[in-house]
Amino acid sequence: MTPETNPPAPTFADVRAAAERLSGHAVRTPLLESPALNARLGGRLLVKAEPLQRTGSFKFRGALNRLLLIPDEARTRGVVAFSSGNHGQAVAAAARLLGMPAVVVMPSDAPPLKVEGTRFHGAEVVLYDRVRESREAIGMAIARERGATLVPPFDDSAVIAGQGTLGAELVEQARERGARLDSVLANCSGGGLVSGVALAVKELEPEARVYAVEPEGFDDAGRSLASGERARNAALSGSLCDALLAPTPGELTLPLMRRLLTGAFAVSDAEVLSAMRAAFEHLKLVVEPGGAAALAAVLTGKLDVRGKTVAVVCSGGNVDVATFARALAMPG
Amino acid sequence: MTPETNPPAPTFADVRAAAERLSGHAVRTPLLESPALNARLGGRLLVKAEPLQRTGSFKFRGALNRLLLIPDEARTRGVVAFSSGNHGQAVAAAARLLGMPAVVVMPSDAPPLKVEGTRFHGAEVVLYDRVRESREAIGMAIARERGATLVPPFDDSAVIAGQGTLGAELVEQARERGARLDSVLANCSGGGLVSGVALAVKELEPEARVYAVEPEGFDDAGRSLASGERARNAALSGSLCDALLAPTPGELTLPLMRRLLTGAFAVSDAEVLSAMRAAFEHLKLVVEPGGAAALAAVLTGKLDVRGKTVAVVCSGGNVDVATFARALAMPG
Repeated sequence: MTPETNPPAPTFADVRAAAERLSGHAVRTPLLESPALNARLGGRLLVKAEPLQRTGSFKFRGALNRLLLIPDEARTRGVVAFSSGNHGQAVAAAARLLGMPAVVVMPSDAPPLKVEGTRFHGAEVVLYDRVRESREAIGMAIARERGATLVPPFDDSAVIAGQGTLGAELVEQARERGARLDSVLANCSGGGLVSGVALAVKELEPEARVYAVEPEGFDDAGRSLASGERARNAALSGSLCDALLAPTPGELTLPLMRRLLTGAFAVSDAEVLSAMRAAFEHLKLVVEPGGAAALAAVLTGKLDVRGKTVAVVCSGGNVDVATFARALAMPG
Repeated sequence: MTPETNPPAPTFADVRAAAERLSGHAVRTPLLESPALNARLGGRLLVKAEPLQRTGSFKFRGALNRLLLIPDEARTRGVVAFSSGNHGQAVAAAARLLGMPAVVVMPSDAPPLKVEGTRFHGAEVVLYDRVRESREAIGMAIARERGATLVPPFDDSAVIAGQGTLGAELVEQARERGARLDSVLANCSGGGLVSGVALAVKELEPEARVYAVEPEGFDDAGRSLASGERARNAALSGSLCDALLAPTPGELTLPLMRRLLTGAFAVSDAEVLSAMRAAFEHLKLVVEPGGAAALAAVLTGKLDVRGKTVAVVCSGGNVDVATFARALAMPG
């Protein structure tokens, strides 16, 4: 394992540098809009469509930015990641792009689609028991053994900066269509996405408010923002949002979130399924449960967007057929 | 009804002019790519994602281009369209954008989603019986009564040129990522889309071959290309591809297709459902049956794309929940 000093928190300059580094590799995903959803909300809703990102989620941005910062001499020893799925696929795809070997440590209850996706991108997959084993311990042991670089899913300056490129694009794309953002909502697990997005949004559009959205019962970010301490979720599994189950915010992400965020919302599984159904019907976009939390918060009125312009990040689309069929069965 | 002389066939200059006219109104939809589909095909597949177009299909391009060419003095009398759905929604949305009244004549068996969509965009909907009544007659009677301009779904120079803007974008976007197109496949009903796309592709990338794809049993275009005469489909309904049921190619579109196309393919309902499932899984895109025919032709190997770079147009995403659930149930 490459020795690491405790890295400093990223700044907007890191986001800008990441955007240059990722240019031509990451997709500049479209910002979608639906007249029907606007009419329903009485406001203007802009949706950043990260299911259309490489590997089907925003995670590719952070992973590739991190890997591009690994010194040449360490690249041949490869990378190790632990991941509920999307981060693993992203690290695998970024590693293949750079010709590096990759090991991904995944929970044994991860959706088969995500396990297959990770293997497809050329990574070696090691499964572990989400309740009884520590993915950190397994990942670190493999990293030590092979001299590989550990790529954390969110609590890493380069990963956060990479996710932030999505926020910078979002503001640019909103401006291209003459919109000024009142609020931006992003899904939140460990906080890498929302803190990176907030870095960009608060720099480029300081008046805009940024919110984290997480699953009910897994609202560690909301409770941490309220208390100022890193709260932990009581459970490690049990939400449909398999991508949003990190037990606690990061050491780097929580201070960023406390400084930059206005608040957090929590949404239920049923609300998330309804949001997926709305994205199907009105945006023609396939969104996974954890990718639809922020959209759900807006569609259920947790944030009142009447007369406002609000952007949500739909962060991923790696959902299996059975779960998507449940979303289709929700009322329209 | 505005008197019309028989308009000349459109040229690539008309496509260029349409692109300028539509700029800022039509979405420059993304060109998607999936490493998994590329690996399965042994080639490179680029997918133009028109479900992300305004009103959920490419039809907005042709409709708006046509409406923008209506002289100011005729605009207040409005427009009339007959449509199986997507054209109607497109005309309705384009008319609202320009502040014009719109009447849309739709078959009574059109998907409820498309009827609702048309009404949502502010048009008056008149339903007719697809088998016993003539939509042309009904549409023309209304146009005469109100002095409105009839907007044909495909056999119109401005409509074809509008659809052609999609082909020009497709070639540009392929070049942006360093790809040279060997073939382009587009779905075909009356031929407005494929002839417009062919005008652009054959101008910008003359070596590329362009193919039409239509439903089995509704292969009027393929038979017309073979015989040189406008063949008619035996049936008027009975395919899952509700958007691809025009009875015969147009007077304008068939000569363009004969001049510019290499050939045509026909696909079954099951093949189309499988292609929709593939788009769900690998592109995160919601595609309707008629929108997935070209993708189906490639995925089933009707055109061998090994070692080639091939683009398909996924032309629309207005599909109801029950039909999409059928697609999800197909083998992956």
